[in-house]
Amino acid sequence: MKVALGIDFGTLSARALLVELGTGRELGSAVSEYRHGVMDQFLPSGRALPQDFALQHPQDYLDALCDAVPRALKAAGARGEDVVGLGIDFTACTMLPTLGDGTPLCLLPEYGDEPHAYVKLWKHHAAQDQANRLNEKAAERGEEFLARYGGKISSEWMVPKIWQILEEQPAIYARAERFIEAADWVIWQLCGSERRNACTAGYKAIWHKKKGYPSKAFFKSLDARLENLVEEKLGGEILAIGQKAGDLSAEMAQKCGLPAGIAIAVANVDAHVSVPALGIQEPGSLLMIMGTSTCHIMIANEEKLVPGMCGVVEDGVLPGMMGYEAGQSCVGDHFNWFVENLAPAEYKTEAQARGIDLHALLTEKARGQKPGESGLLALDWWNGNRSVLVDVDLTGALFGLSLLTRPEEIYRALIEATAYGTRKIIETFEQSGLPVTGLYACGGIAEKNAFAMQLYADVTGREIKIARSSQSPALGSAMFGAVAAGRARGGYDSIFEAAKEMGGVREESFLPIGEHKPVYDALYAEYSALHDFFGRGGNDVMKRLKKLRAAQRGRED
Amino acid sequence: MKVALGIDFGTLSARALLVELGTGRELGSAVSEYRHGVMDQFLPSGRALPQDFALQHPQDYLDALCDAVPRALKAAGARGEDVVGLGIDFTACTMLPTLGDGTPLCLLPEYGDEPHAYVKLWKHHAAQDQANRLNEKAAERGEEFLARYGGKISSEWMVPKIWQILEEQPAIYARAERFIEAADWVIWQLCGSERRNACTAGYKAIWHKKKGYPSKAFFKSLDARLENLVEEKLGGEILAIGQKAGDLSAEMAQKCGLPAGIAIAVANVDAHVSVPALGIQEPGSLLMIMGTSTCHIMIANEEKLVPGMCGVVEDGVLPGMMGYEAGQSCVGDHFNWFVENLAPAEYKTEAQARGIDLHALLTEKARGQKPGESGLLALDWWNGNRSVLVDVDLTGALFGLSLLTRPEEIYRALIEATAYGTRKIIETFEQSGLPVTGLYACGGIAEKNAFAMQLYADVTGREIKIARSSQSPALGSAMFGAVAAGRARGGYDSIFEAAKEMGGVREESFLPIGEHKPVYDALYAEYSALHDFFGRGGNDVMKRLKKLRAAQRGRED
Repeated sequence: MKVALGIDFGTLSARALLVELGTGRELGSAVSEYRHGVMDQFLPSGRALPQDFALQHPQDYLDALCDAVPRALKAAGARGEDVVGLGIDFTACTMLPTLGDGTPLCLLPEYGDEPHAYVKLWKHHAAQDQANRLNEKAAERGEEFLARYGGKISSEWMVPKIWQILEEQPAIYARAERFIEAADWVIWQLCGSERRNACTAGYKAIWHKKKGYPSKAFFKSLDARLENLVEEKLGGEILAIGQKAGDLSAEMAQKCGLPAGIAIAVANVDAHVSVPALGIQEPGSLLMIMGTSTCHIMIANEEKLVPGMCGVVEDGVLPGMMGYEAGQSCVGDHFNWFVENLAPAEYKTEAQARGIDLHALLTEKARGQKPGESGLLALDWWNGNRSVLVDVDLTGALFGLSLLTRPEEIYRALIEATAYGTRKIIETFEQSGLPVTGLYACGGIAEKNAFAMQLYADVTGREIKIARSSQSPALGSAMFGAVAAGRARGGYDSIFEAAKEMGGVREESFLPIGEHKPVYDALYAEYSALHDFFGRGGNDVMKRLKKLRAAQRGRED
Repeated sequence: MKVALGIDFGTLSARALLVELGTGRELGSAVSEYRHGVMDQFLPSGRALPQDFALQHPQDYLDALCDAVPRALKAAGARGEDVVGLGIDFTACTMLPTLGDGTPLCLLPEYGDEPHAYVKLWKHHAAQDQANRLNEKAAERGEEFLARYGGKISSEWMVPKIWQILEEQPAIYARAERFIEAADWVIWQLCGSERRNACTAGYKAIWHKKKGYPSKAFFKSLDARLENLVEEKLGGEILAIGQKAGDLSAEMAQKCGLPAGIAIAVANVDAHVSVPALGIQEPGSLLMIMGTSTCHIMIANEEKLVPGMCGVVEDGVLPGMMGYEAGQSCVGDHFNWFVENLAPAEYKTEAQARGIDLHALLTEKARGQKPGESGLLALDWWNGNRSVLVDVDLTGALFGLSLLTRPEEIYRALIEATAYGTRKIIETFEQSGLPVTGLYACGGIAEKNAFAMQLYADVTGREIKIARSSQSPALGSAMFGAVAAGRARGGYDSIFEAAKEMGGVREESFLPIGEHKPVYDALYAEYSALHDFFGRGGNDVMKRLKKLRAAQRGRED
């Protein structure tokens, strides 16, 4: 038996999965939670953290790995010797400062009580001020990279986070010999070599395969102390996705019950790594990773400037191809908001009596409606707009309410609104010269919410294929591990070969219902008009309301 | 002791109130429900009614009167001989066909099973088709009366209801020697003379003091058989509000325990009759009668064309003055809709545990918010727009939603939206040359919902005075009864005298809070922009959504 090992590092835990080579059969998996979880209130010492901080402890990643791998092997009935390669994926941008040898600064006694010495998790939102100033400066200087990122660098990304450290704790900045994605840091720990991946570098650190990082002049314009950031602190070779980072070190092999020398792939991002897990290899394929929010990964042969996307990176998803990222910041969260805030008492009673959850009950009641029958239409901006408009200050809106409006009608309208948002992203790719020829979905909603997926098929007028695996990121990571091993060691020579043999979609797909098309075309036309009116300056009422809200609350949320 | 008797005929019951002359002290009252209530499913025979019918039985009015009056006398500790005058008010347009002697057609054996022979209640909505064609024809012919009614004659009013009878049961139309408001029919029964009132004639039957009814040519253009409607079937003198209709007949006196010969005032409409009950006599006063919907009555010296109001009638509210009517079709209904559909289970549990209702709980949670703190803004068109825009096809909208939005924030936004709607009506009067110099309120919301009233004061930036009586319509009717009696019989020579002595407002009024003004001015500016954009053709999405809704449901609601 030859198997590959994939490890998916999520926000709260790591999942190890063992996959049989050749068949893609998932043999067994194990999950291990991070001991410190997300630190957003206190450091381990008890020191209180400022607002909007979200930190992690780097040792947790290694501990979780060493805990989960042996248990996954056991669950799979496999031995360490069966494993030919290992790949990992991670949340991003999740970054930390280290010494030149990879030692995290937070492990140094003098910095154990310093917040800025720890890992900043992707959802650390305290660098918004730096992001705002970075965007202003880049726009002012006409930096060409801005266009690749929809006109805005997010506060969640690498450079604003580094700049925050510099401004708030210059000593930590000075001491740091590296700022590195946790993904790449774990790979470094596994194989002993600092090998960065093109995916996080490209999507989160403003790196371009041909153009590199932003110029020294740009960094200097932010702060003179940042001028040499790239050479001094972002060292390490950047490898394309699909390449091998190195071999498992003896020390780590011993700790996690694997033989030394196993091939290790360069790290990846959780969303992006899912693409080959569905067997996707064709340019024009768009994958939706659907959970609390949705991430859209589109692969193509060409680099085009697509307005309002989160980034385009060569080799960022599949080697030799352009990978585009887009997103909707409020999808499952949207439906949960409704259930948590506005589901009426009788529905809760009914759901409890029948032993189903409120989502199931609302879905059942909403399923019988015809498209357009509620007379409702929503703009899905409950958490701003991440792609196309790229504007966090937009808010949600609901039209067509009457005294006859029922809760399940609003629930359905919210789901439909997110589907319109996806169609808007698809159309924006197409209008930019990138035809979308295949639509795929994975993640919790794709897997479990057939009602939502049918609405997405109807609204987009496209077939949607669903991941066969319910652990797409870990499966994708295992596939990259197999590629790192190469055919000679029982793996594959390319991710395309691996995708063909190990990845795949369910036999049943969601097909658009013909008679729904004209109705949803009409509704989408209304959505588009309102999207452009409220999103492109026709009436900036949402921003003014949000500003007033902040002023009256005495703070920004 | 000298007392006046006021009888308020509501949708489901009649209320008799005895009021002391000179002081306005309410001595006692009694309520009597109509035996047949609202017939919207079946006739008394069991015959099923078509959709949107809402009928009543005329005998119920007299029975309720004869039941309530003796009980009210008893409750008041008064004797029939103490009563000097009697006034009534009624829902409108609530109309019926009768013979020339006042006999309702539904009481004739041959018509007892005919829906069109019964009273059509104000909310009988089955004459929409006739109303639509009437409005088209009037617009086509450039009939000047349209402008007095905001450009539209409602399907609830007299002429569409008569036309429906003609089209659907020509035999009933032919046999009817009168079409008459139930208000005037009850007066006819009380005093034996057919005396119509200027209020219902003016607001509901397109009558004008100087110009009379629409022309024969107009009626003929609708249907040749309607050409002589006015002369043939709308006979009877039209008297100004405040005049005497006649004396109580011996027969009716005996039936309701009063002495014969008591002065009877001409009938009135429930909303309009409330004006003197608050002691209002100054031109420029605007009274809001606030319940499930709000009716605004404005009195002025001049007749102006105010766009989008429900009507202006000379002598329609107070003799010698112009009375304007406006309305918001969804006020208490709006708040109830939220509580019934979207109040979450935990809130219901909390309210039950504390023994308060959900409105009280939501109010308590909403009260602490600062203006603008929710970031929400609504257009209050859950039941269309009755005044200013006069468009039943507009629907509600909600802006500024986020994942942080809480139920009580939406609840407050809905209340604020109705306050913006009222401010829009006030400003429309003022922009048309009719300054609003005093703002008054009565009805359930004015009386019980201090939170809403404070918001109304803040949003309008005006002091709001609240009716002293919780039975304003019955009190107003009693005052008109006292005026019908005249000073010689212990009453008053004018409603203004009566209003001064018997009417009044609470000592405590609602005053706008200074620091809220700039915030609500800003929010109202946003409301106005959205009101005009969605209400005046900027984007007719609401109408298209409503049309689609109707098409998908296979019918109009």
